[in-house]
Amino acid sequence: MVGGGQGAFIGEVHRLAARLDNELDLVAGAFSRDVENSKLTGQLLGLPSDRIYPDFETMMTSEAKLPVDQRMEFVAVVTPNHVHFPVAKAAMENGFHVLSDKPATRDLEEILELRQIADKTNAIYALTHTYLGYPLVSHASNLVREGEIGAVRKVFAEYIQGWLATDVDNKQADWRTDPSKSGKSGCMGDIGTHAHNLAEFIVGKNMTHVAADLTTFVPGRALDDDGSVLFRMEGGVKGVLSASQVCVGCENGLTIRIYGETGGLSWSQETPNELKRTYLDRPTEIITSAQGYLSEDVQSMYRTPPGHPEGYIEAFANIYVEFARRIRGEGKLSAGVDNAVRGMAFIEALIESAENNSKWTEIPA
Amino acid sequence: MVGGGQGAFIGEVHRLAARLDNELDLVAGAFSRDVENSKLTGQLLGLPSDRIYPDFETMMTSEAKLPVDQRMEFVAVVTPNHVHFPVAKAAMENGFHVLSDKPATRDLEEILELRQIADKTNAIYALTHTYLGYPLVSHASNLVREGEIGAVRKVFAEYIQGWLATDVDNKQADWRTDPSKSGKSGCMGDIGTHAHNLAEFIVGKNMTHVAADLTTFVPGRALDDDGSVLFRMEGGVKGVLSASQVCVGCENGLTIRIYGETGGLSWSQETPNELKRTYLDRPTEIITSAQGYLSEDVQSMYRTPPGHPEGYIEAFANIYVEFARRIRGEGKLSAGVDNAVRGMAFIEALIESAENNSKWTEIPA
Amino acid sequence: MVGGGQGAFIGEVHRLAARLDNELDLVAGAFSRDVENSKLTGQLLGLPSDRIYPDFETMMTSEAKLPVDQRMEFVAVVTPNHVHFPVAKAAMENGFHVLSDKPATRDLEEILELRQIADKTNAIYALTHTYLGYPLVSHASNLVREGEIGAVRKVFAEYIQGWLATDVDNKQADWRTDPSKSGKSGCMGDIGTHAHNLAEFIVGKNMTHVAADLTTFVPGRALDDDGSVLFRMEGGVKGVLSASQVCVGCENGLTIRIYGETGGLSWSQETPNELKRTYLDRPTEIITSAQGYLSEDVQSMYRTPPGHPEGYIEAFANIYVEFARRIRGEGKLSAGVDNAVRGMAFIEALIESAENNSKWTEIPA
Amino acid sequence: MVGGGQGAFIGEVHRLAARLDNELDLVAGAFSRDVENSKLTGQLLGLPSDRIYPDFETMMTSEAKLPVDQRMEFVAVVTPNHVHFPVAKAAMENGFHVLSDKPATRDLEEILELRQIADKTNAIYALTHTYLGYPLVSHASNLVREGEIGAVRKVFAEYIQGWLATDVDNKQADWRTDPSKSGKSGCMGDIGTHAHNLAEFIVGKNMTHVAADLTTFVPGRALDDDGSVLFRMEGGVKGVLSASQVCVGCENGLTIRIYGETGGLSWSQETPNELKRTYLDRPTEIITSAQGYLSEDVQSMYRTPPGHPEGYIEAFANIYVEFARRIRGEGKLSAGVDNAVRGMAFIEALIESAENNSKWTEIPA
Repeated sequence: MVGGGQGAFIGEVHRLAARLDNELDLVAGAFSRDVENSKLTGQLLGLPSDRIYPDFETMMTSEAKLPVDQRMEFVAVVTPNHVHFPVAKAAMENGFHVLSDKPATRDLEEILELRQIADKTNAIYALTHTYLGYPLVSHASNLVREGEIGAVRKVFAEYIQGWLATDVDNKQADWRTDPSKSGKSGCMGDIGTHAHNLAEFIVGKNMTHVAADLTTFVPGRALDDDGSVLFRMEGGVKGVLSASQVCVGCENGLTIRIYGETGGLSWSQETPNELKRTYLDRPTEIITSAQGYLSEDVQSMYRTPPGHPEGYIEAFANIYVEFARRIRGEGKLSAGVDNAVRGMAFIEALIESAENNSKWTEIPA
Repeated sequence: MVGGGQGAFIGEVHRLAARLDNELDLVAGAFSRDVENSKLTGQLLGLPSDRIYPDFETMMTSEAKLPVDQRMEFVAVVTPNHVHFPVAKAAMENGFHVLSDKPATRDLEEILELRQIADKTNAIYALTHTYLGYPLVSHASNLVREGEIGAVRKVFAEYIQGWLATDVDNKQADWRTDPSKSGKSGCMGDIGTHAHNLAEFIVGKNMTHVAADLTTFVPGRALDDDGSVLFRMEGGVKGVLSASQVCVGCENGLTIRIYGETGGLSWSQETPNELKRTYLDRPTEIITSAQGYLSEDVQSMYRTPPGHPEGYIEAFANIYVEFARRIRGEGKLSAGVDNAVRGMAFIEALIESAENNSKWTEIPA
Repeated sequence: MVGGGQGAFIGEVHRLAARLDNELDLVAGAFSRDVENSKLTGQLLGLPSDRIYPDFETMMTSEAKLPVDQRMEFVAVVTPNHVHFPVAKAAMENGFHVLSDKPATRDLEEILELRQIADKTNAIYALTHTYLGYPLVSHASNLVREGEIGAVRKVFAEYIQGWLATDVDNKQADWRTDPSKSGKSGCMGDIGTHAHNLAEFIVGKNMTHVAADLTTFVPGRALDDDGSVLFRMEGGVKGVLSASQVCVGCENGLTIRIYGETGGLSWSQETPNELKRTYLDRPTEIITSAQGYLSEDVQSMYRTPPGHPEGYIEAFANIYVEFARRIRGEGKLSAGVDNAVRGMAFIEALIESAENNSKWTEIPA
Repeated sequence: MVGGGQGAFIGEVHRLAARLDNELDLVAGAFSRDVENSKLTGQLLGLPSDRIYPDFETMMTSEAKLPVDQRMEFVAVVTPNHVHFPVAKAAMENGFHVLSDKPATRDLEEILELRQIADKTNAIYALTHTYLGYPLVSHASNLVREGEIGAVRKVFAEYIQGWLATDVDNKQADWRTDPSKSGKSGCMGDIGTHAHNLAEFIVGKNMTHVAADLTTFVPGRALDDDGSVLFRMEGGVKGVLSASQVCVGCENGLTIRIYGETGGLSWSQETPNELKRTYLDRPTEIITSAQGYLSEDVQSMYRTPPGHPEGYIEAFANIYVEFARRIRGEGKLSAGVDNAVRGMAFIEALIESAENNSKWTEIPA
């Protein structure tokens, strides 16, 4: 991994995600330009000190010298935007696949060069367009491709946040509003690209033309923090794309709505377990997670059954963390043995009451 | 871990959760009474063969003989209900802490015995009452304890599902409807206990009396699949608790609403990122995840920022899995290098259009 | 009309409703025991002074003496509960039909006597169980009767409000919490009866048994302000009914959910334009107002097309009121001629921009 | 009234609305170019035959000859769009005020002429921009004007429907898609103007520039059925306005969201009883209808208390209609005397059960 030192956000999310399914191990990293930060991060992650590198260049060349079965297999690029390009380039040129955070690079020229390198080196290059990982996004895409809503006519793609509504001063905000780190665009590069990508993914067509209005609302900011775009896609599809980081109180409002000749689909990242499907002459349907009526491939993307929002796993993980801490003598348990006693006493009392014509019954504990 | 072989549900959730934060390692297991299943499960999880045990008794005694720094630290009990008791007993008697799935045991007598053993052995015993792991549940509990809604008067606790509305025949359903495995109660033991526990946790008082009506709606089923309960808690709190597994189309509808003298709180597991707070004379508030206005301890329970439902991590993990598979030559990428090119081309076109008075601009790729 | 003087709530709602469809005229009234209030109310409603009566007894006997084609046809009873009985009795005995607010009377004995009188006099007696007037309630009832959700198993009926959470002192609250005016029950008589009635109407079966827990939470109040009820209906249906007026921040939360062997239905009075229908193995459907897929008789209950919540008519009425006041020289217009100019200028500019490849175009006004 | 004959939609809505508050009487009409339709409509509305006119010209001149206290006071114009102009013109020139449906006229030129006539004749001219009649729209407007969300930055105005997604052939659709009747624009003139008007009303600023993309998706249609617009308002406000009549399954999706420097507001016509307010650093608030925390002038726009969606009145009206029909010997009652008996029996049983420690109690009827 390159990037993701202490104080970064997305690096830790990458690590959580990579770890979840027990299929991947983090084996090496250059986590920060700040060598101490990088060391500390690596140690906290349990890496041996010789796989914690001071910079990505050293990491690439050192890893490339290791025997094939010991060296890292691919590089996760989780740096600020301006470093995506040199890292991905160095990685592929040293024989490593690349999984990069988006936007791919600062501009079109850089990514075109990366494509050439990927072609030449046979490296696999991929972007973490997170939202494509949602099962119901795949389902929506399948429905459109199978003609279930007819030829697509109109698309509304929107990604609105509010956290940059004021002159925020923190690490996350700083690089995002600095052209030398973020690239030519602020809000559009950071989140507008997600909306663009999601629209193309679900519709299954390329966007061909845009008419755009980009704005910097917060005084002193160097890049756009808001934008509205009219667009056209192949095949006569028309649409509107809005992205903003100054919509006060909005959190992570990525929403897409697609209307075809015979139906419509609507999905929001903030309620990712629902896909709304509309018809010409039938009630609207709420398609929900992990249901048996989804296709096999979509079902296979779920780790929990219907009605267990994916946060379920994290709630579960919180319970595990609490327990591990208690064993180390820290904190307290939400549900310990007394709690367990109470649960069983509750059941006993229920049954006694039910067997006695719903008589009020004392819980015996 | 005891239980959680191939075909089980909750065992895998435990493992996902335990793995998430990189604080725990699975070191040993007796995953199934079916020895082959246990072996296979252990191998898939990467355990050395001598830590995959044929049964939990062997596991306890074998692990107890290992040096302290090599043996397992605690046992996660994820078996059907009727095995919770002997496993937890054996674990604690052999010097291991226990993290058990709920309900704790088949009846009150068993858990009282476990409490004695825990006291005697100094083992830490905890239950995975998952829903207590949700940060906004903790926040709700804090608000009530701090008097923010006044003295509590009325509680509505409800947990309704629909998956047992018909005579389902599968592994999950089978043991839940078999008294010898599940204990004295079906629906109430399986999910009613969650509602009970959640009510006590948030209100911070014990339930003292119940008047219950338990029903078996599906013919041929030996245990209750539905129940309604009037209850009373310490301090004059009154309430209704409903649990059902025959509410067709309901998924995992755990909801709690609590009304005090000056305010109310309402939370649903299916939309876990929102806590609704009502007032006597002000607009209702929607308290959301990870916000700065939450207390430090509640904020520390989040792994992602506001607006990123916890499923975000899983969507991310899906992207990682896809990439790992592609490296192994399988499947295809949602977002590869061509996609990356398209993203940058989109940004270029946006900026060109915006700089030209929103002129329609072709996306150059 | 008997009742509904100045300061009353439901009387004015009755008049608005009666007027809406232009099928009924208010011709006589005894609006208050306070003769001045009655006179004033009648005058404001445009009644001739000889049809404004000092009390209901006079009204009944006087109207009965008028020629058939001039006398009132029926009496709307909108008084506090304790007066329902004598008014309805007098009306029917004098030859008038009765449309009474609910609860019918203070106790069972009184309504049984009214039923006898109705039988003897051939008067038509009806209750304004308002919620039965919602088209989607009729639709739900039709679906259940047609077997669309299979045999009904479980019903959740709930009506929770918060306006009596404190010791409220106003006209509305006063009679509702006074046993001599309200009858034997406070909250249950006032709103619990709506939930009961709705359950029986949609399920199409009678409730046969109850196990109830009624509470008075606010000190000093003479009647219940909260209650929870387990119930059973004919044919093995079980259910829970909750009613409360102390759930802080709840407004008018009447909700019913019904689960049968093959499906479920859920409707809330606060979002009356949606009826949720669940299935064993298909996505949940959102049935909405006035749609073509509803039956003819249900469609005929709508005054506006799909997506126009019935409040639409009132918004429209507000516009009319504003205009009427402006003609009388009062207030100001939301949308006057300048506004009209702006609207047309907007359209002109749109078309010019669209015809010029989406060029930015000034709105010419 | 001019327009609103049998088969029309909006004319009847105007009449319902005008009737609701008992402040207005319909006294004359020219309801249709089809004289028989006009006569029939007038008769059904109870007009004397000499006030039912064959055409609007006759109506204007005839009414103008009546004594001032007998003649009509104003004209409601509810015809297809192309007739708005001549009717309003004739009305004002004959001394009558005008309340016109929108859009005001077919083009800017016509409405500018009407403005001149209004100025000259001192007639009051108003448009029924229905959505301005919603109390929470007024409240939103007040909040913005009082600086409660800071200087406005970004506006999203959207009005999407689906009823013209196919080649619909009915009276409503026909004139809307006929340029000679509807004017220069279809969808934008019909519904886009509502979104435009609502944005200007709440923000309190004029829209100054647009960049528009209008589309006709359904083959053979002569006017736009969809459009997307980037816009700018006075004071640096930017926005997006979308209107469409081909979004399959959308009903009447008028939504507005406004973001200022310190807060945001969001309102939807389909859930008109909620106004969402967002803050920089506090939980989002749900402002609801008729609450005491609203200003006096906004509260005065309500006819029912909190939690009674305005449809409440119509549900009530349905009950009245049903009763009136029953008196005429038609239909059946939802809630007659037997039902009333059941309600009282329910209460009796509740009280008996509650007084006997929640014992199961039979309902005695």
